[in-house]
Amino acid sequence: MSQPVLSLAERNQSSFELPDVQAETPAVPLVVDEAGIVDLRYPITMQEASGTSHQTVANTSFAASVPTDARGVHMSRFVETLHDWHRRIAVHTLSALLADLSGRLDAQEVIAKFEFPLFLERTAPVSGGSAFVAYDCSLEGRLQSEVADCTLTTRVPITSLCPCSREISDYGAHNQRGSIEISVSFELTEHALLEFGDLIAAADEAGSAPIYSLLKRTDERYVTMQAYENPAFVEDITRAVAAALRSDLRIRAGRVRVVNEESIHSHNAYAAIKWAH
Amino acid sequence: MSQPVLSLAERNQSSFELPDVQAETPAVPLVVDEAGIVDLRYPITMQEASGTSHQTVANTSFAASVPTDARGVHMSRFVETLHDWHRRIAVHTLSALLADLSGRLDAQEVIAKFEFPLFLERTAPVSGGSAFVAYDCSLEGRLQSEVADCTLTTRVPITSLCPCSREISDYGAHNQRGSIEISVSFELTEHALLEFGDLIAAADEAGSAPIYSLLKRTDERYVTMQAYENPAFVEDITRAVAAALRSDLRIRAGRVRVVNEESIHSHNAYAAIKWAH
Amino acid sequence: MSQPVLSLAERNQSSFELPDVQAETPAVPLVVDEAGIVDLRYPITMQEASGTSHQTVANTSFAASVPTDARGVHMSRFVETLHDWHRRIAVHTLSALLADLSGRLDAQEVIAKFEFPLFLERTAPVSGGSAFVAYDCSLEGRLQSEVADCTLTTRVPITSLCPCSREISDYGAHNQRGSIEISVSFELTEHALLEFGDLIAAADEAGSAPIYSLLKRTDERYVTMQAYENPAFVEDITRAVAAALRSDLRIRAGRVRVVNEESIHSHNAYAAIKWAH
Amino acid sequence: MSQPVLSLAERNQSSFELPDVQAETPAVPLVVDEAGIVDLRYPITMQEASGTSHQTVANTSFAASVPTDARGVHMSRFVETLHDWHRRIAVHTLSALLADLSGRLDAQEVIAKFEFPLFLERTAPVSGGSAFVAYDCSLEGRLQSEVADCTLTTRVPITSLCPCSREISDYGAHNQRGSIEISVSFELTEHALLEFGDLIAAADEAGSAPIYSLLKRTDERYVTMQAYENPAFVEDITRAVAAALRSDLRIRAGRVRVVNEESIHSHNAYAAIKWAH
Repeated sequence: MSQPVLSLAERNQSSFELPDVQAETPAVPLVVDEAGIVDLRYPITMQEASGTSHQTVANTSFAASVPTDARGVHMSRFVETLHDWHRRIAVHTLSALLADLSGRLDAQEVIAKFEFPLFLERTAPVSGGSAFVAYDCSLEGRLQSEVADCTLTTRVPITSLCPCSREISDYGAHNQRGSIEISVSFELTEHALLEFGDLIAAADEAGSAPIYSLLKRTDERYVTMQAYENPAFVEDITRAVAAALRSDLRIRAGRVRVVNEESIHSHNAYAAIKWAH
Repeated sequence: MSQPVLSLAERNQSSFELPDVQAETPAVPLVVDEAGIVDLRYPITMQEASGTSHQTVANTSFAASVPTDARGVHMSRFVETLHDWHRRIAVHTLSALLADLSGRLDAQEVIAKFEFPLFLERTAPVSGGSAFVAYDCSLEGRLQSEVADCTLTTRVPITSLCPCSREISDYGAHNQRGSIEISVSFELTEHALLEFGDLIAAADEAGSAPIYSLLKRTDERYVTMQAYENPAFVEDITRAVAAALRSDLRIRAGRVRVVNEESIHSHNAYAAIKWAH
Repeated sequence: MSQPVLSLAERNQSSFELPDVQAETPAVPLVVDEAGIVDLRYPITMQEASGTSHQTVANTSFAASVPTDARGVHMSRFVETLHDWHRRIAVHTLSALLADLSGRLDAQEVIAKFEFPLFLERTAPVSGGSAFVAYDCSLEGRLQSEVADCTLTTRVPITSLCPCSREISDYGAHNQRGSIEISVSFELTEHALLEFGDLIAAADEAGSAPIYSLLKRTDERYVTMQAYENPAFVEDITRAVAAALRSDLRIRAGRVRVVNEESIHSHNAYAAIKWAH
Repeated sequence: MSQPVLSLAERNQSSFELPDVQAETPAVPLVVDEAGIVDLRYPITMQEASGTSHQTVANTSFAASVPTDARGVHMSRFVETLHDWHRRIAVHTLSALLADLSGRLDAQEVIAKFEFPLFLERTAPVSGGSAFVAYDCSLEGRLQSEVADCTLTTRVPITSLCPCSREISDYGAHNQRGSIEISVSFELTEHALLEFGDLIAAADEAGSAPIYSLLKRTDERYVTMQAYENPAFVEDITRAVAAALRSDLRIRAGRVRVVNEESIHSHNAYAAIKWAH
């Protein structure tokens, strides 16, 4: 059925005292743990404590808790907050962002999450040529009962070479692309903050060989032999990285997960260790 | 550099007493919580307690814990177990599958997970025409310290219509495709098992209107008006479904998450409630 | 603003002589080449000419051309057609399906496409153990100016080992998971139909070694050495498969594309050859 | 089996006169149409003709043809070229990039492709608040027989409201997120270049309403009513955009494809028109 069409002016005119439906009393008086937005892609500037900054693209998610007496959150405030902060995303600015978000939403608990590729320039081992390698990262902050926590996650690509295949074969050994995913949670206090660089450093040498975007022939020879000299199961790599990180007492909870894109199979192999202090 | 080539026969001949590298002592004596395979796609037969069975395709993952004195797991045993069981996957057969897996891997803790679309035939509300609707499901079993637990997850597609948009507009209201994801964990005892049907039933009527694959014009009129008559925020839907499930004492831990693919935005809105008994 | 609510009965009652909006004259009198549905997941039975049938899950797409004097297609008819045919999908039934679709939509040109994993049981080379390997396949039929054409696409997973890496290194050679994608188009005549098996057979031996889901240690030794003995660039594999298929005169147009998930990089290498008769 | 381990110095020492395996004569003397890299994620600066530049992240692909007398391409040269050019990617620099690539690879035919989100700031229709909206774009250049061609593709998110649903219902109308994908090919001559802005402008007003990232309540009322006043089928939108672009004689070949994420279904509806001059 057809409707009378209003002009833009008429629409605006009649739009002054619009009811606030989100502020109504909900039919079911339950606290909603998280209500917000997900999968909003946004350009961000990721700042390291060192001062280095990275222009990248993030998949963002913001949320707030909803008390028993409110029907919903005002979703547009998440986007306003993201837009105000998108050029200064960092571990050291996260607690301020969470406090701002908590105030704008008038919420006890808020969450802000950014998933993005961090590009670091890598130098080939022999030729010295350099190019960018992408490290998938996630920065998540949570404000709960006045404590701000942070969870950093990084995925570091590696080459892994199978110790069993090398040992049982007269020549050759199957090897493949793999990745080391490290996730650590810690409190956002003044000092003692972790950075993505700390996690990447812990993983970078743990595979059979690192991954590069640019390798000339002399480099290819180098990494081929380096991998053959350093065979490692997913279990070996997971244990080595977990052992190195467990001693860091800033980490409240940590998890290491290594995945191998098995070259002799269509499926992947993985191993995982988690811990808490 | 070139290598002497062995014939197939020679290779087999020399392959008799191959060393068991996985059985070696690891360099780092840490327990590995999970070591196994992921992303192995496999045809499965999913059986309901009612006797109905579904031929579908699963993305599978199997894992086992690794003690401090073993270097790795024998990955091929996961595939052998999957192949033996793939025609009888069910909530009521899961504890037997886990026990079998635990024995084959000689592991205290094992995990088996299956993610697959479950196809249910749906009848259009007016025309009565029927077609299949896909419900993304996940069946995960864990055996830990001799207790077998199960986690069922289902995603039910819905239409949602925005109460705010309807209230503040002279005509129309934005609506969109959404989904209700329900995840429940419970102990795999003899009795009191939950099934995917229980979760789908809890979600199916909670949106502004259900989703169908086949709708004739009379059905389209019906669901359009049904949605307009039943506006709901993601928070409303989440609360309604959570309230309905929290009373089920078989559920040790549950979570409801509703996502709206906002028709007026490129990003999504969501709400989530979790609980434990 | 609020609306009077109709009962289900009233809605149905008033739904008898609904206008056919799709049949209206369009504002812009252009032929629409394709109008239809995409991404409808459906359970299907894929039948081989041999009689073997496979229960799998397809991502389906159906479309029809729209003449200058019609505003749109009746989308529900695609779903009705799919539901009627989903248990007898095959190369040899495709032209009948297209003819049926053309009649139901009253369209000169129609398209039906099914993308699904085809699971074939593979036997390990030494142990003889067997398990399923997934081959991503696509079956597409087009009826245009009374000629029915078919395009078959298959992706065959392989292991590839780099000839350069092997040649320049004192020991070892990087290898990785790769895939051979073959796409062939031909006319759907009574005889001379191609099947997915023909394509998989052409690709299966072209890599450095085939991929298996289940490999015991003796098999792992076998395929590791087999790959080392058969180094191949993506260009080598592409040329070998293209050369084998170009002689098949049933193929009107063909394409071979090989992708290597480089184990020493995060990016992939590929090569492609296409031809037409 | 174990191998003598070389030091880094020894490896380098022995790496001087490494054979060029790619330069060998291939076993099968076929031209390879494309050989190169895909899925290399890289930070890029996308420059508009206007001078505006965008920092974003691209999924890149580079390739070259391989003559019958060469076994393969030197893949590392693609990465070197990308690294040299990644800060000046533009329609007006593309032919120079292709010429450079052709020289480095000594290839008659080369391809360079960049897929990335382009972020444009959008202002809400009533409140005037602004935020970024992501437009998925693709820039592809091909040099063939000394002619450089360019293909630009843009995906513009929209809201679409169903004319049939509105017409047959007493109130409401189903609406959903949709997208208009425009792809145009043209020759890279000195003048008459198209830009992404030209395509986005052609699509932006063609839906029932545009998509925004930030909408306050007054804006939500506005776009809800705007969509209700402008119902459109995927066929309507496709025809309108195609009609507007077909008159642009710079375009050698064009395609418009509109997809609706139907709010009453789990599958999508689409329409497509293509043309060539």
